[in-house]
Amino acid sequence: MSTPSIIELITKKRDGETLSDDEIRWLIGAYTDGTVPDYQMAAMAMAIYIRGLGPDELTAWTEAMLHSGDVLELSDIDGAKIDKHSTGGVGDKVSIPLAPIVAACGVNVPMMSGRGLGHTGGTLDKLETIPGFNTSFDRDGFHRILTDTGLVLAGQSERLVPADRKLYALRDATATVSSIPLISSSIMSKKLAEDLDGLVLDVKVGSGAFMTEPESARELAETMIGIGKAHGVPVTALITGMDQPLGRAVGNANEIRESLEVLSGGGPADLVEITKALAVEMLELAGIEEATTQVERSIESGDALAKFIEVVIAQGGDPKVTEDPTLLPEPDHEIPLIAEREGIVTRCDARVVGLSAMRLGAGRSRKEDEIDPAVGIRVEAKLGDTVAQGDTLAVVEVRTREQFDSIEMDLRSAWEIGENAIDAPPLIRDRITSEL
Amino acid sequence: MSTPSIIELITKKRDGETLSDDEIRWLIGAYTDGTVPDYQMAAMAMAIYIRGLGPDELTAWTEAMLHSGDVLELSDIDGAKIDKHSTGGVGDKVSIPLAPIVAACGVNVPMMSGRGLGHTGGTLDKLETIPGFNTSFDRDGFHRILTDTGLVLAGQSERLVPADRKLYALRDATATVSSIPLISSSIMSKKLAEDLDGLVLDVKVGSGAFMTEPESARELAETMIGIGKAHGVPVTALITGMDQPLGRAVGNANEIRESLEVLSGGGPADLVEITKALAVEMLELAGIEEATTQVERSIESGDALAKFIEVVIAQGGDPKVTEDPTLLPEPDHEIPLIAEREGIVTRCDARVVGLSAMRLGAGRSRKEDEIDPAVGIRVEAKLGDTVAQGDTLAVVEVRTREQFDSIEMDLRSAWEIGENAIDAPPLIRDRITSEL
Repeated sequence: MSTPSIIELITKKRDGETLSDDEIRWLIGAYTDGTVPDYQMAAMAMAIYIRGLGPDELTAWTEAMLHSGDVLELSDIDGAKIDKHSTGGVGDKVSIPLAPIVAACGVNVPMMSGRGLGHTGGTLDKLETIPGFNTSFDRDGFHRILTDTGLVLAGQSERLVPADRKLYALRDATATVSSIPLISSSIMSKKLAEDLDGLVLDVKVGSGAFMTEPESARELAETMIGIGKAHGVPVTALITGMDQPLGRAVGNANEIRESLEVLSGGGPADLVEITKALAVEMLELAGIEEATTQVERSIESGDALAKFIEVVIAQGGDPKVTEDPTLLPEPDHEIPLIAEREGIVTRCDARVVGLSAMRLGAGRSRKEDEIDPAVGIRVEAKLGDTVAQGDTLAVVEVRTREQFDSIEMDLRSAWEIGENAIDAPPLIRDRITSEL
Repeated sequence: MSTPSIIELITKKRDGETLSDDEIRWLIGAYTDGTVPDYQMAAMAMAIYIRGLGPDELTAWTEAMLHSGDVLELSDIDGAKIDKHSTGGVGDKVSIPLAPIVAACGVNVPMMSGRGLGHTGGTLDKLETIPGFNTSFDRDGFHRILTDTGLVLAGQSERLVPADRKLYALRDATATVSSIPLISSSIMSKKLAEDLDGLVLDVKVGSGAFMTEPESARELAETMIGIGKAHGVPVTALITGMDQPLGRAVGNANEIRESLEVLSGGGPADLVEITKALAVEMLELAGIEEATTQVERSIESGDALAKFIEVVIAQGGDPKVTEDPTLLPEPDHEIPLIAEREGIVTRCDARVVGLSAMRLGAGRSRKEDEIDPAVGIRVEAKLGDTVAQGDTLAVVEVRTREQFDSIEMDLRSAWEIGENAIDAPPLIRDRITSEL
């Protein structure tokens, strides 16, 4: 192919035509190396946002992104390599108990996670509240920990899918984030670069999720499954509710404490339900039989917790936190948010709780912000719960009382207390799997 | 209004919503001063390209562009101030005889023109082939020449509509040029900054024009008329054919020679027809009665030519060129392109002729190119003409014979010689005027 003109490619997509594999490969390469400047890619991203990408375009786009940088090579590792990706929510600490549960069942979990932004938290921020815990590895380090322990809980290397890093920042600044083809290819290019044998997706839907409508969540799941299929990687997606925070803890250190409860056989029912369901899907993709029994046994036997301790040590963290959670950062004050009337909780808005936690310092409004690992919110009254006047809706973990005062009114607006009992919606809304 | 977020504005337009006047004013200002970077404006331009701008948005957009820099203040000048704008074509030297014809009838013509790019020529390049002729003036100089002579033939100052200068370069690089709202607001913001009492548009349609389809040309004309109406400026548009070059000369010095023929009462019939028709429209917008008679008399009496000599002197040019056109730059060779068969000319493609002239050096493939004022093409066989084998299709004016050789094959492809007589399409296809 002769070098295509970027203007011609933008024109094609602008007019709803289909880009060829060669054109897409050239475009992603030329954008990554700077030949195509941001302003031309911005016009292309908007054209894609409005016109979409067809299945073949999406396969080529993801493939080109995936090969824009390093690709992991894990074929020498025995056994299946399965990862999980969540589209992000509030209180979503599932990866932390999930990865050791699954690894304890004999499945390799090369998990790459991200940091919190806006109302959603990030697994790396949570893990780093464990004193000494390191999430940044080169390829060899990542490979060694995975080989030794059967799992690794790491950040994404700078050299993995650099095209996505650059394109995501541009989309963020040009109102082209919420495009299903662009989201799908962004997620899948990173996951496919991990050399996986299978991938489980937790596609969140609801007020605290990126997708607020069930149809969009389903379309996103199906699109990602399609990309996986085109690359020969089986993918199973669960569509799960994110109207209220998952579990009770929203923050960083408090989410590690809650994760330890799950690994010890306790923890809030909704968090346990999702964690186990995703673990079962990962085991099934790995071809392990009696997956449900295996998952239960891995927790009850203490194997999952032991595996977590193993990976904490391997990644330089202090394993004593698993016995003594007070070694994790702790807030100076725990201030209750009190119910002003009695009734039944008919709304407990995940986004509002997430944004309040962010404003306390548990999250970032901009990528460059630093977080405070000790602060956060523990939700006590969840959807369908009956509360009396004076009951605690949430416990706010702060450094100073002024922090509580500054968010109290906003945080309170997350709850609606009604008269009538409600049917809490099911947590797991749908399950979609690829037929390879 | 609080400062809007650029992301919110892009999101609105992306989703087909309407931007408010305040939002548009902020956007154009912030783009002009650099607060909004190119990549965000590129995404906005693509969203506008696909979603369009409504009439109110278009008015606000044009108004904001118009006020991004200097605006002329010509109210102290007696009499109506009328300009003409052409959307551009091949051999379109109409402005050069038109402005003095109209000025000789007592109408002020504050004319701002552009330079050639691609297959189309530019009035400034043509005028500057007159030795000493200057087209670059500050506001005072422009005002003085207009006051003294009743017309001025100038380039657009750097300080007039800087938003358009910046946005046009961006659109050129992001496949967002051919958008009717963006073209209309670009043209009209510059014309409305000239403090006009009326504007005549020559909207070209055909192979050599920006708009190749009659419907698009009509939509463009109506959109510009609508913008003029919203700003209280009456606008009349003629939609004219640009399938073949206008007149015979395509180049720079040769187009001045042909313009002098028109001013002296001669010249090719199509060029004379359009020039007179546009002159009549300008006079009518100025409220002058018996416009057709006035235009005829201004040429026959020699007043128009005298007015041209006057403005050449006022702008520093050598008026002797009007008596002795050999003072204009001349080519070293005039080489005929010979018909290889007999028949009737059924195609004489304006774009192909324009591109050939550009490749000779008469035009620019990129803005920064320099032109050769002496070279060009004189078309001898036009649509509907009967030619014998060996007849001259065109005379190619070159510096070297090699130049002719290098374009001969391409230039020849502009002509199609058929068997049957054709009805040459009418030159003036439509007339649309604003009802104020």
